[in-house]
Amino acid sequence: MRPVAVVGTGKTPFGAFPDRDIRSLAVESVAKCLEDSGLTASGVEAFYLGNFAGPSFVGQNHLAPYIAAEAGIREIPCTRIEAACASSGAALFQAWAAVAAGVYDVVLVAGVEKMTSQTTPRVAEILAGAGDMAGEMAAGATFPALFAMIAKRHMHEFGTTHEQLAQVAVKNHHHGAMNPMAHMRKEITLEKALAGKVICDPLTVFDCSLVSDGAACVALAALDRARDFRAKPLRVLGIAQTSGPVALDRKETITSFDAVRRAGEKAYEMAGVTAVDIQFAELHDCFTIAEIIATEDLGFVAKGEGGRYAESGATSLGGERPVNVSGGLKSKGHPVGATGVAQICDLAEQLHGAAGERQIAGAKLGLAQNLGGSGATAVVTILGAE
Amino acid sequence: MRPVAVVGTGKTPFGAFPDRDIRSLAVESVAKCLEDSGLTASGVEAFYLGNFAGPSFVGQNHLAPYIAAEAGIREIPCTRIEAACASSGAALFQAWAAVAAGVYDVVLVAGVEKMTSQTTPRVAEILAGAGDMAGEMAAGATFPALFAMIAKRHMHEFGTTHEQLAQVAVKNHHHGAMNPMAHMRKEITLEKALAGKVICDPLTVFDCSLVSDGAACVALAALDRARDFRAKPLRVLGIAQTSGPVALDRKETITSFDAVRRAGEKAYEMAGVTAVDIQFAELHDCFTIAEIIATEDLGFVAKGEGGRYAESGATSLGGERPVNVSGGLKSKGHPVGATGVAQICDLAEQLHGAAGERQIAGAKLGLAQNLGGSGATAVVTILGAE
Repeated sequence: MRPVAVVGTGKTPFGAFPDRDIRSLAVESVAKCLEDSGLTASGVEAFYLGNFAGPSFVGQNHLAPYIAAEAGIREIPCTRIEAACASSGAALFQAWAAVAAGVYDVVLVAGVEKMTSQTTPRVAEILAGAGDMAGEMAAGATFPALFAMIAKRHMHEFGTTHEQLAQVAVKNHHHGAMNPMAHMRKEITLEKALAGKVICDPLTVFDCSLVSDGAACVALAALDRARDFRAKPLRVLGIAQTSGPVALDRKETITSFDAVRRAGEKAYEMAGVTAVDIQFAELHDCFTIAEIIATEDLGFVAKGEGGRYAESGATSLGGERPVNVSGGLKSKGHPVGATGVAQICDLAEQLHGAAGERQIAGAKLGLAQNLGGSGATAVVTILGAE
Repeated sequence: MRPVAVVGTGKTPFGAFPDRDIRSLAVESVAKCLEDSGLTASGVEAFYLGNFAGPSFVGQNHLAPYIAAEAGIREIPCTRIEAACASSGAALFQAWAAVAAGVYDVVLVAGVEKMTSQTTPRVAEILAGAGDMAGEMAAGATFPALFAMIAKRHMHEFGTTHEQLAQVAVKNHHHGAMNPMAHMRKEITLEKALAGKVICDPLTVFDCSLVSDGAACVALAALDRARDFRAKPLRVLGIAQTSGPVALDRKETITSFDAVRRAGEKAYEMAGVTAVDIQFAELHDCFTIAEIIATEDLGFVAKGEGGRYAESGATSLGGERPVNVSGGLKSKGHPVGATGVAQICDLAEQLHGAAGERQIAGAKLGLAQNLGGSGATAVVTILGAE
């Protein structure tokens, strides 16, 4: 396997865009990525698209050639990957593997979701399709209910508090308020987060990520081609995709995601680093408890210490290891199929020193973690600047 | 790129199975494939799943880990690929590339669709998601309407007749009647085919493929590992995935699918053969006209001669180049996401000399062509026995 680099990124703002359709969002991200990398559409050898539920949200399926053709990308393999909320993380992994193994030299990986539409009232039902519809969902669960159970159990086992969950929300809103591309650019106080409307006890509305529209795209190239496109390519130092059981009741524990732990271990091994070396991360905070568990599963802290770690300020901008300086899914927004690739764009922005007032001084090594469902798919990527 | 072999296959019967759910169908095909190859679940390094519209038909998304876990396949990358009716053909291409390039030695590729369900009354609408919902479909078209326009134009340009379309149906029903795994095992006469209820002029119900449930799975291995699993592995001699415009109005011509022509050319070049060498084929007869056009696009006959070729009997069992000896999508059935991999299973059955009364004498080299939408995705695969 040869080294692979990120040679360009492109993103739409995340938000609720009633006047935009799914194709125009994706095409905007692709066009920006081509411009950023200096690639031309005809230089792209394969196109990968992460999308979770275009057919359910807006009725459009077969999205990879649909979007590629509109972006001027023709004839090449155009392939949609679906892996729930890790759809574009999985697309990134497939694309990385193809370049690393020498199938292609230069590929694009995009992700898109258009969640605000006529079907938005059905959003909980559509998202439930990422879980076990015949089991947990048939029994009446939704994702907020599943993650509420996870949070309750984490509180029970490790003494995690609702204040600690709320701290994650406060932090990510603080970061997102500084991100011009974020969906919800407003600070919230701890008092406000704690007093939020309960969605599913103990999770309030402030513990839940957003229903967003948006798209993101990255260009990958073999490292020996990367400087054709960009003076400072970023290295994909480690990457892994893993899987686990879909239904919560099939897991040995619900306070840790086995797939995330294994993906992290594999990515660290490939990169030749350990958790201690990771300076900053974009973690999959679909719910506040998910970010806390991710800091544990990835070895940033010991099992059970994630709540106290969040409370300590270590994961804030200026702390020892900033997490979700983009605002995360909580404040930046969570257009499901776009999230995995958007995390890579956000790492790249930091590694290029282009994050403005959110810039982490000396950012050289960042990690992204993308989660599908309640842990059935996990993708972990480690990106480095030279 | 190193040589890759098919070392096992597994299929469910195709049909309408009100008592089966999508997972049990897929798991059955995976279990049969593991048994056929002698592989164990723990020996599989990656799992690829082709599925078009599980979320729309039965509400279940995130299908790759959902199915893999139930089949005993754990921890590895499990990835769903969607490319309309070419979903599992595209999954096969991705899997082949990963093995050929050395990412994995042994992988499984499955395809599944569960089309008969509470949503079956919406089947035309769900299938329409494979076309341009904002354009042709918003204007009132459905896939039968699009292929009816294609048929009309082919008749106008080349003198193709409705009798020739009907011959394709008669032939494929004749083949399918002999296939114990086929959905609709009954012969039809030319008179009956011609007198069928008109769905969209000139296409009658007998020109249209079936709404089916079913699953199929193949095991791929690097050729140097293949004999660990099977005494007589089959070689993937050529394979290509290509793309074209989604909407009919974006195509230069509608009587030929550019993506199919290019996929065929690439697959022939890779295999070092020409159309003349192909002994038999499984072609994507979603509508009878599609089989006729495929015989032209793949170079079996000159452009415009497909109708007369079908009428000549050349594509019947016993003819010079049998097409869809399985019964094709027309009679075997068309569970959309399963079709591409099922075609490979059907080629393998012939190449292993295991097709019973449908056996083609001396079958050594076969081709499968899988089409997404009205030509936005095409996958062509050439399989050979030693």
